[in-house]
Amino acid sequence: MKLLIPGPVSTHASVRAAAAQDYAPWDNDFRPINASNRARVLKIAGTNEAEHATLPLQGCGHFAVEAAIRTFVPRGGKLLIPATGAYADRATRLAREVGCDVVTIPVPHDAPTAPDALEAALMDDPAIGHVAIVYSETGSGVIHDVPALAQAAGRAGRRVIVDAVSAFGALPLDLSALPMVDAVVFTSNKCLEGLPGLAFAVARIDRLVACQNQAGSWSLDLADIYQHALRAGWGTSRFTPSAQAMVAFSTALDLYDAEGGQPVRLARYTANMRALYDGVCELGLAPYLARAAQGPIVVNVHAPADPAWNLQVFVDALKAKGFLISNFYNTEAPSFRVGCIGAITPDDMRAAVCAMDEALAGMGIQQRKAA
Amino acid sequence: MKLLIPGPVSTHASVRAAAAQDYAPWDNDFRPINASNRARVLKIAGTNEAEHATLPLQGCGHFAVEAAIRTFVPRGGKLLIPATGAYADRATRLAREVGCDVVTIPVPHDAPTAPDALEAALMDDPAIGHVAIVYSETGSGVIHDVPALAQAAGRAGRRVIVDAVSAFGALPLDLSALPMVDAVVFTSNKCLEGLPGLAFAVARIDRLVACQNQAGSWSLDLADIYQHALRAGWGTSRFTPSAQAMVAFSTALDLYDAEGGQPVRLARYTANMRALYDGVCELGLAPYLARAAQGPIVVNVHAPADPAWNLQVFVDALKAKGFLISNFYNTEAPSFRVGCIGAITPDDMRAAVCAMDEALAGMGIQQRKAA
Repeated sequence: MKLLIPGPVSTHASVRAAAAQDYAPWDNDFRPINASNRARVLKIAGTNEAEHATLPLQGCGHFAVEAAIRTFVPRGGKLLIPATGAYADRATRLAREVGCDVVTIPVPHDAPTAPDALEAALMDDPAIGHVAIVYSETGSGVIHDVPALAQAAGRAGRRVIVDAVSAFGALPLDLSALPMVDAVVFTSNKCLEGLPGLAFAVARIDRLVACQNQAGSWSLDLADIYQHALRAGWGTSRFTPSAQAMVAFSTALDLYDAEGGQPVRLARYTANMRALYDGVCELGLAPYLARAAQGPIVVNVHAPADPAWNLQVFVDALKAKGFLISNFYNTEAPSFRVGCIGAITPDDMRAAVCAMDEALAGMGIQQRKAA
Repeated sequence: MKLLIPGPVSTHASVRAAAAQDYAPWDNDFRPINASNRARVLKIAGTNEAEHATLPLQGCGHFAVEAAIRTFVPRGGKLLIPATGAYADRATRLAREVGCDVVTIPVPHDAPTAPDALEAALMDDPAIGHVAIVYSETGSGVIHDVPALAQAAGRAGRRVIVDAVSAFGALPLDLSALPMVDAVVFTSNKCLEGLPGLAFAVARIDRLVACQNQAGSWSLDLADIYQHALRAGWGTSRFTPSAQAMVAFSTALDLYDAEGGQPVRLARYTANMRALYDGVCELGLAPYLARAAQGPIVVNVHAPADPAWNLQVFVDALKAKGFLISNFYNTEAPSFRVGCIGAITPDDMRAAVCAMDEALAGMGIQQRKAA
């Protein structure tokens, strides 16, 4: 079964094989794995241990987004979030529950956030201290230009948190050139193709030191993870981690390096997306985004305007042919979504498109265009 | 390698084999696994879906303890924690960072908390709304009588949160008889012998409903997990879970049932503990606890009062013989700790004791008694 979802993704068998063993996370044979993961992640983020620290966090990407907001935005602090789609909406709710004063700016869901619009909004409201940006918005498939948006925030003198959960490792990131970014967060199981169970933040050390005792949560305090590492070492965890996911992540990074790192991974995902995008167009289906706005991570496709359309029936038919797509959607209009990330290739995508054609025919779908 | 640590524990190969596959957590073939895990956990807790709900949480036991405190103790609410040892200290710090007003009562680290002392402390301070109790205190090895302590709190009209992270599944628990308990928390990887990466709370439905919008954290809000389940079904997760750990947990529950459930598992762990306790006594080592106070989960042993003693050297020597124990300790006096839980037997414990004897001899330890 190929998982064509934006996470957890299909992984290599060698990644999963790392989970065949029991591990003690504080063991001296285990610690170097954790420490090495942390150092390797810094390189992918375009930085080094003098400026930034990698903070692993048990759990999921959502927890890491909350941890970054808790750690760096003071309680009651004002945070601007461009409303790029479902995952920006999540960040908005999350930050409000933490106790932040969140303001949003509207962003069309079929285009990247305009840096000028962000800068203007910041200039209009000096009380905003932080901006949180979703790099790859799963809710649309649009990639938002994090470097340009962060520079805009930086010009306005504001700090930035980047939700790179569906982006890190595939989309370019050079934190050394983005000093206004407090933290970028991501997980083990998206573009880095590890197992789920492990989240990460890469954060500025000066900010981690400045923002101690601010999180209001021991569990989700990135500054405390940093202090713990200083005391106990970079191979340690504060609490029991998903040890198998950590070892699997190490193997996943080996495969990442062997493939050629970020540019080559992005090229494969882009080729996956193009094979899929072209394929669904040829089938007469309507992608949610225009070709120019379509990012390489997830393709949302409008649901056919046919009374025979039923997402779960379509999902089941594809699954019977070896391809698993999501049985829900995050767009405003009905759609189905197909992930282009994970241990999959353009040939897999072409085969998936053939399977879609057969599934639609089998369902008796006449009208493949959207309403 | 046998992991003789109080978690993550040694698991059966069939449990780890569950991790050999990729899973989509919202998939219709996956949801029944999650839903079934939740229902089976209720039975182990001595309750049913009319009164309680199982709330899975990504991450570790510490996160679930924080989630329970956030969800059920109002911000600024007063919480009493018997100071039973290292894990009670953790709960104390955790609750303070959440914003609770925490008071502790002293408890000797070599004996169970006295229900009378708890009740007297509660009667002295009507502002205390909640009590948090550690069931098996890893910091000492003492089991605290949760049913009696909860009854004492109940007589005083207070609510209770139980940290059963190192206890659930082995030590008895009948939530149907303990209506004053808001939640009991535990993880997949201790006495239930699953993989790490998944935490749980079992909580009262009436209290989950009464305590909505109180957690101050979307990530760690048990009431929101409950509402999500009502909306989306018991097979769903709010955010990406450690899917492999969920499937492994299902297999672990099969093994648990096949073994005979809680009484049989407790009997095996007790036999493990006795084999270990008797063995270290025969070696001339001094257990931290008197026999009557020693619980079945973890045995702490005083460090030998010999200048040649070095915990890491001892750990490495045991590891070379196939037994991995912790390379740190949670007691006040120097000690080493040995877990009695996981897929291990009294024969394993006897073999471990032989390995300890050889390791001590190899290190040139003359004085095996404590200082």
